Amino acid sequence: MSTDPHVDPLVVFTPSGKRGRFPKGTPVLTAARRLGVDLDSVCGGRGICSKCQITPSYGEFPKHGVTVSEGALSDWNAVEQRYDDKRGLKPGRRLGCQATVQGDVVIDVPPESQVHRQVVRKAASVRAITMNPATRLYFVEVDQPDMHSPTGDLERLERALREQWQIDGITADLTLLSKLQPTLRKGNWGVTVALFRDHAGGAARLTEIWPGLHESGLFGLAIDLGSTTIAAHLTDLDTGEVVASSGIMNPQIRFGEDLMSRVSYAMMNPGGDREMTASVREAINDLIRSIASESGIDPNLILETVFVCNPVMHHLLLGLDPVELGQAPFALATSDSMRLGALEMGLDAMNPRARIYLLPCIAGHVGADAAAVALSEQPGKSEDLVLIVDVGTNAELLLGNTERVLACSSPTGPAFEGAQISSGQRAAPGALERVEIDPETKEPRFKVIGCELWSTEPGFDAATATTGITGICGSGIIEAVAEMRIAGLVDASGLIGSAEQTGTPRCIPEGRTHSYLLHDASAEGGPRITVTQGDIRAIQLAKSALYAGARLLMDDMGVDKVDRIVLAGAFGAHISTKHAMVLGMIPDAPLNKVTSAGNAAGTGARIALCNIDSRAEIEATVREITKVETAIEPKFQEHFVAANAIPHKTDPFPELSKVVTLPDVSFNTRGGEGETGGRRRRRKSS
Amino acid sequence: MSTDPHVDPLVVFTPSGKRGRFPKGTPVLTAARRLGVDLDSVCGGRGICSKCQITPSYGEFPKHGVTVSEGALSDWNAVEQRYDDKRGLKPGRRLGCQATVQGDVVIDVPPESQVHRQVVRKAASVRAITMNPATRLYFVEVDQPDMHSPTGDLERLERALREQWQIDGITADLTLLSKLQPTLRKGNWGVTVALFRDHAGGAARLTEIWPGLHESGLFGLAIDLGSTTIAAHLTDLDTGEVVASSGIMNPQIRFGEDLMSRVSYAMMNPGGDREMTASVREAINDLIRSIASESGIDPNLILETVFVCNPVMHHLLLGLDPVELGQAPFALATSDSMRLGALEMGLDAMNPRARIYLLPCIAGHVGADAAAVALSEQPGKSEDLVLIVDVGTNAELLLGNTERVLACSSPTGPAFEGAQISSGQRAAPGALERVEIDPETKEPRFKVIGCELWSTEPGFDAATATTGITGICGSGIIEAVAEMRIAGLVDASGLIGSAEQTGTPRCIPEGRTHSYLLHDASAEGGPRITVTQGDIRAIQLAKSALYAGARLLMDDMGVDKVDRIVLAGAFGAHISTKHAMVLGMIPDAPLNKVTSAGNAAGTGARIALCNIDSRAEIEATVREITKVETAIEPKFQEHFVAANAIPHKTDPFPELSKVVTLPDVSFNTRGGEGETGGRRRRRKSS
Repeated sequence: MSTDPHVDPLVVFTPSGKRGRFPKGTPVLTAARRLGVDLDSVCGGRGICSKCQITPSYGEFPKHGVTVSEGALSDWNAVEQRYDDKRGLKPGRRLGCQATVQGDVVIDVPPESQVHRQVVRKAASVRAITMNPATRLYFVEVDQPDMHSPTGDLERLERALREQWQIDGITADLTLLSKLQPTLRKGNWGVTVALFRDHAGGAARLTEIWPGLHESGLFGLAIDLGSTTIAAHLTDLDTGEVVASSGIMNPQIRFGEDLMSRVSYAMMNPGGDREMTASVREAINDLIRSIASESGIDPNLILETVFVCNPVMHHLLLGLDPVELGQAPFALATSDSMRLGALEMGLDAMNPRARIYLLPCIAGHVGADAAAVALSEQPGKSEDLVLIVDVGTNAELLLGNTERVLACSSPTGPAFEGAQISSGQRAAPGALERVEIDPETKEPRFKVIGCELWSTEPGFDAATATTGITGICGSGIIEAVAEMRIAGLVDASGLIGSAEQTGTPRCIPEGRTHSYLLHDASAEGGPRITVTQGDIRAIQLAKSALYAGARLLMDDMGVDKVDRIVLAGAFGAHISTKHAMVLGMIPDAPLNKVTSAGNAAGTGARIALCNIDSRAEIEATVREITKVETAIEPKFQEHFVAANAIPHKTDPFPELSKVVTLPDVSFNTRGGEGETGGRRRRRKSS
Repeated sequence: MSTDPHVDPLVVFTPSGKRGRFPKGTPVLTAARRLGVDLDSVCGGRGICSKCQITPSYGEFPKHGVTVSEGALSDWNAVEQRYDDKRGLKPGRRLGCQATVQGDVVIDVPPESQVHRQVVRKAASVRAITMNPATRLYFVEVDQPDMHSPTGDLERLERALREQWQIDGITADLTLLSKLQPTLRKGNWGVTVALFRDHAGGAARLTEIWPGLHESGLFGLAIDLGSTTIAAHLTDLDTGEVVASSGIMNPQIRFGEDLMSRVSYAMMNPGGDREMTASVREAINDLIRSIASESGIDPNLILETVFVCNPVMHHLLLGLDPVELGQAPFALATSDSMRLGALEMGLDAMNPRARIYLLPCIAGHVGADAAAVALSEQPGKSEDLVLIVDVGTNAELLLGNTERVLACSSPTGPAFEGAQISSGQRAAPGALERVEIDPETKEPRFKVIGCELWSTEPGFDAATATTGITGICGSGIIEAVAEMRIAGLVDASGLIGSAEQTGTPRCIPEGRTHSYLLHDASAEGGPRITVTQGDIRAIQLAKSALYAGARLLMDDMGVDKVDRIVLAGAFGAHISTKHAMVLGMIPDAPLNKVTSAGNAAGTGARIALCNIDSRAEIEATVREITKVETAIEPKFQEHFVAANAIPHKTDPFPELSKVVTLPDVSFNTRGGEGETGGRRRRRKSS
């Protein structure tokens, strides 16, 4: 179809398919805006930011019913030439604000020119992240002051934003105001501003200003503040790309390993809560400084941060005494999402005007981290019934489908992270992370973090010479105990057999109980790594709590099995699902229906960072979630006791039986001693 | 008219005259609310705050067509009895929330039970202040936490405010949140909250919380931050009463006496602006501490502060470099009103969550102080043409009527405040404030601050023995120069005559000029107080600037006289209008049409503090004012030169002539030396 001189040219945008007729001479950017095509621009069409790059296509397009001839767009102009000379345009690219429509044309908007581009998540993902950040950049030209009609520089900047970007009303704090006048003059009245717009409405907030066109980007942090570790993901707020990830230990560990000991510390020591607040804020500041410096990014370019954390960390981060979270009815000071300034929270390592968002808490025991998991994994959009288990020092559980979502937390304690385990250590080079025990010989082989070889393979000693073999991390202890159960070294009640009972000298007496020797380097002055009866008991306590929480949700939902299980948490990513099920950490399910979502809480934080709509979404979702409080539910105790056996005292594990047969051994010679249920302690409610 | 048992009783409220019928048993407070009668309540009708006191009237009320019988209200109840036992109710008073309607009744709402009561201003006033503060108290009963439906304490408080007070949505900062949980528990879930509602809209802000019913009141500060002095008025935000007033010198004086020297200090010394900001904030904190301690009020009960000040002080208070205000085009960083938190401004001597309001600036030379004068004096509501002159180190002028209001500022310098005067001093005990010179004998008499007697009256020496006679303050120098002119000691050009020319030995030579001796205590080691030729020149410069500003506004308005003149400023209150006109400080006008408004800027600050609607009003008013920039107006220079003569070179002063005849003397023996116009310097624009 040739162009009819009496009809305006047809412009077809891809990939959106949006189309419309525009008079000759219309800039492509203008056409895109009129059609609502997602085409980025920071400079507002002045030909300086290059965000609006497009690619015209030429030839026949039967699908669109268009023939695009050579002269469909205006000729390459001086602005484009200057930009190309200075920065280089990719072949075929044009600047959308410079190229004008001259005839029927098909125009492709490449992903990097879209504001709402999709970011592919690395891990297996329920959905991609669509970019729609709260903070965006705008270049404006501001009127110079006029004595005959005197107004403030801020008011003239406001007018420019209204006229050039249709943005009505802005606010600015004093620190921004104090740099406004020199920046406007330095930029010769052309400046780039960063505007933060809250998803709950209100005036846009001016958080940064640069002279001229700012081209060094804009960054945000997604921070997963755990009881044990703090992980931060530095994210480009334009592309959504994670520029750097970094983590440190939570220094509050010195006040108590688990949450309840930190709450106790606050209760017993006047000012203890403030001490813990100061320590975690300092650590976060250190983390921000180091991640910025590692990636070579000016920390002042970090203009947003999203936090996810459990309720106790939430309160300690905010400077709220967590004492009410230590006792029924576990009242949060505030449960809604929080929007704050960085300085209000004592976070001075990023831009002082950076905006902070904390996801809402679900309940006194189920925090913003669980909300982040819900945001990432979307149980409420799942057709089949999914159990999501976020394994950490405290486990959060979500059970649901499109009909209903339930949530609870369970006080597993830090055993799954290698703490309270005799040879336990955190996941670091040198730690045993995989264990296999030959069911015949009862001999173990293992892998350590930092080496791909099994301990029985040639070259292992050389490969581990620098790291050494130092202890067992969380995933290692789960595999070790599960393998001991599979190999018949541990019975269903959790007792380790003697060398006589098991037929291996690796079962060695230790007081009135036995340990299993995994690795002995004591002859060379190295460690002697064993799994003790105490270790088994610690794992039993932890896994019983986890299983009991899941069962409680299943009771509430009125089901006795789930369709699929998602293991979340950085640690969840490393758990062998088979071994987890042998231990009875999770309910029975087909093994191929047990998947890992990686650090789902961290992903949820990244989603909330990159897409402001997701903040409104999770706030609404949280209100719909049914909260189950394990601490006051008598059935929790029942489920806990029954879950003490490995894998379980009463619940059948038919799916597990299809892949593993557990030997029916018993090492109890004194009757009933294997029961630990009575010695169980509640970590969160005591 | 007797009560008809088939018709609901009639309730008539006075003074509003609002009336309506209500079923028997309706509480008076409920009836008042339904009718929109202004009846206060903090506790929401729980019978504990006593704010809703009313007085029923009994007998015949032909005006209202009502007969009120004895049983028109329910009997005194236990709640009222308990309150009366504890606090005492005035005779005839009832609690409006307890007394119920039983028959036709006339109910008076005394002023102290009205929210929007009027506060009578002490000074002659254009209008009374109607109370409508931004911050108000609300007592609420909050639901206790429920594990089965977990929400934060803040969210339950929000719900209580919504249900009990129809207030939707609140915000709270972290410092408030950190005291929320203990306060709710201490108050057994009954708390009083202070809520700040911005006149521009948005969610109410929770600024304070107390357990139970808070009865110690709520206070605000109206602060007039001048270049030379800082004055604060501590005001009860319930009654509007000024509890205490206090003032201190502005410590920035050490960086420069007038505004332009402070701007220069900031330009010449890196960090000089920050130094000045710190010094003024520290002084304000000191002032707040002392005013609170003098009046025995907990500074944490100060929850609002309104500032008025000129643009340079505005910027220095906010921590904004004032450098742009020192040179054309005199661009303000921001001209709109400012709403901030106390801590953001470094004001930590009051409640850290106190809200600060700064009135808008009119232009780069006409600040929030001029806006406050406009708010207090309302030139835009004046039928006759009024010139308002706020005399200070810098003078602000407003000229207008209902048609149009113009504003400018004029760089008078500090001479009118006694600075740059050889024997000048600030207005303090011992300073000459009134001066008369006998036109015959040329002998002076004077009064000093702290003594009611003239210096020629018996007992004067004894009465001034403790203060001494120390110098001349601003009003004293104006009277002295004017009296010298009237007595023929100074000619129209400003020259002081010699002893020969004037016939008095008090005219003593000093170099090539002469001085007039007012008081000589040098024999007793006391001061020798004279008016020198230099003093006359300083006063001439100041008054020429003031007059030139007024003339410029009159030119713009197209008039050559004004109907009335209002002298504002603390200093304006002490100026003798006759003497001011003899000097030619102000345009000619009937003397009885020249009045003093006292500290109009301070009054404007009080109005903005007590009535939130006035904030919206002045923001709108300021946008309507026509700004005249004296610094770029060539006619200003012309007017300035012509105004150098005393009273004026060319302008006639017919009204002045009716009361004073100025002697036609001339002491110029060298021709033209009397002209100082050429030596004039601009204080603001140099």
